Amino acid sequence: MNLKKVGEDPYVGETLQQSLSKWLTPNDSFYVRSHFDFPKISKNEFELVIDGLVDHPISLKLDDLKKLPKKTLSATLECAGNNRSDLSPAVPGNQFSNGAVSNAIWSGVSLRDVLNLVNLKESVLQILFQGADSGETEKDNPHEPYLRSLSKDMAFDPDTLLAYEMNGEDLPIEHGFPLRLVVPGWYGMASVKWLTKISAIDSPFKGYFQGKKYVLKYTDGTQKPLEEIQVKSLITYPEDNSSIDQKKISIQGIAWSGRNSIESVEVSLDSGQTWNKAELVGPSEKYSWRHWQYLWNVPSDGEYTIMSIAKDTFGNNQPIESVWNELGYAVNGSKPVNITVE
Amino acid sequence: MNLKKVGEDPYVGETLQQSLSKWLTPNDSFYVRSHFDFPKISKNEFELVIDGLVDHPISLKLDDLKKLPKKTLSATLECAGNNRSDLSPAVPGNQFSNGAVSNAIWSGVSLRDVLNLVNLKESVLQILFQGADSGETEKDNPHEPYLRSLSKDMAFDPDTLLAYEMNGEDLPIEHGFPLRLVVPGWYGMASVKWLTKISAIDSPFKGYFQGKKYVLKYTDGTQKPLEEIQVKSLITYPEDNSSIDQKKISIQGIAWSGRNSIESVEVSLDSGQTWNKAELVGPSEKYSWRHWQYLWNVPSDGEYTIMSIAKDTFGNNQPIESVWNELGYAVNGSKPVNITVE
Repeated sequence: MNLKKVGEDPYVGETLQQSLSKWLTPNDSFYVRSHFDFPKISKNEFELVIDGLVDHPISLKLDDLKKLPKKTLSATLECAGNNRSDLSPAVPGNQFSNGAVSNAIWSGVSLRDVLNLVNLKESVLQILFQGADSGETEKDNPHEPYLRSLSKDMAFDPDTLLAYEMNGEDLPIEHGFPLRLVVPGWYGMASVKWLTKISAIDSPFKGYFQGKKYVLKYTDGTQKPLEEIQVKSLITYPEDNSSIDQKKISIQGIAWSGRNSIESVEVSLDSGQTWNKAELVGPSEKYSWRHWQYLWNVPSDGEYTIMSIAKDTFGNNQPIESVWNELGYAVNGSKPVNITVE
Repeated sequence: MNLKKVGEDPYVGETLQQSLSKWLTPNDSFYVRSHFDFPKISKNEFELVIDGLVDHPISLKLDDLKKLPKKTLSATLECAGNNRSDLSPAVPGNQFSNGAVSNAIWSGVSLRDVLNLVNLKESVLQILFQGADSGETEKDNPHEPYLRSLSKDMAFDPDTLLAYEMNGEDLPIEHGFPLRLVVPGWYGMASVKWLTKISAIDSPFKGYFQGKKYVLKYTDGTQKPLEEIQVKSLITYPEDNSSIDQKKISIQGIAWSGRNSIESVEVSLDSGQTWNKAELVGPSEKYSWRHWQYLWNVPSDGEYTIMSIAKDTFGNNQPIESVWNELGYAVNGSKPVNITVE
């Protein structure tokens, strides 16, 4: 994999800065965040069980899924802990810089089409997803699988996918081969990898990765489970702490916001005092990041602090400063880039 | 490469049927049509010369190009000879079935931004593009390079690219490493691979690959050079001559039309007597094919001939029958798929 290693056992890696400038992230450059070791699943032995509060529990082979209508969409996934290392004071967890975000084209079937095969009972409140990966969540805890739930509404959203292809290839093992839930617009923890079981349940799921982790815990005591990716932008060129000997610089970056489109990106060349509208460029797909650029005629040699902020079509503004929280999630403040023009 | 070989010396291959069902064609599955052997160009030695009727001829390294604003778009390329083997009577040339069409995400710079570096003289009419590949165009002809021109208008279209990335990777050698002209919406012959020279000229270019080949020559004597890709659709599932033991079949396919969007696709289940509107699904990008599907409740076992036709937003209709022409180009008639339901 073409990544910057952030953690081991299980492997965690973030996308390299030079790959963030690509609209499509190649599979081997797509950030990896797992909770347990990658489980090896053979394509032929794979079975997806759908059970719980349903009229007819079923089990589907990969070929059964491939006979259902194929659905393709592009979606940017971001790890909830991306940019965690920007927080001060520091918080525990994988110390991601800004590379735990990537964009791919996912193909599979609508989860809805699969749920419609089993007839849910009226009492169903949530759908629970189980990965084939398992282990200790904390030292000396019993082994348990990776589990996350979605509300019935989100589960029946036609864009919630059971994906078997990523960028036209079979899913790589580190991204959930052979089947992964993809919840477009939500932080990556919702997109359960190595999916092997789907259960209809009648009460809110409160397991480790939903009740204890992946919760925003603010200093005032309020708590909120992580769901939709917050509006954010990054500068991908120039690099932080670089020197440039040009007077015309094409500042480039990316911006994204969960299930909303990006409305505008503004760039500051003076540490945030004044702001200039950037041009949005490249593919414009609902759940994917948008490229932007700003052609800057540098007035004179010197040191500059460049910043960017994005706004989405729902009126959400990227904050200048990230809001500190105990576990370091949803860190979306403007990330300054310092350069020297000489 | 993961292709069906169609020709040798130089290698020609078409995309496999199972890969046509993917919105994004992975690089190793993208059809290959070349006119001469692949030239090997080293990244460091590469230079792009821009000369002819310009104030300041220049030569650019790859790194110079990468400092210009980066432009990304997705585009479907189709070889002008795709589906040539459907014509009757047969015509000479590579006998493509329907796989000489693929879709990728291309990144590079606007050709316009590069041309603006040199100041064209007023007399300039066309821009000529030269590949590093060369050879005999016909037996005993002198060696010559691959050459194609564009009108000034097309050359200055902001979407005409000098691409150095394909699906987020460096261009593979067979697709023109390190630099390829990409003319979105035009048949593939316009997207000159291994681009090494761009010349501003003041008369229409009439070379071998523009005046003699890649010309529609109809039986009534009319001739027309190939430019924009004609509206077309294909069925990607089920496969031709297959047997299916299901009564609910998700018919799937692709449709595309040069620089226009697809407005609708219709599917016939009775050899073209009656037509049903298909659903357009997946990414909708200006220059890329669109996926479509039609859920068919099969009335009874038997043999069926399935067909599809597309219409674009400009009002162009895909014909039922292809129009025969001497060199077998732009073959875009509806391609029937025969299946047995049992």
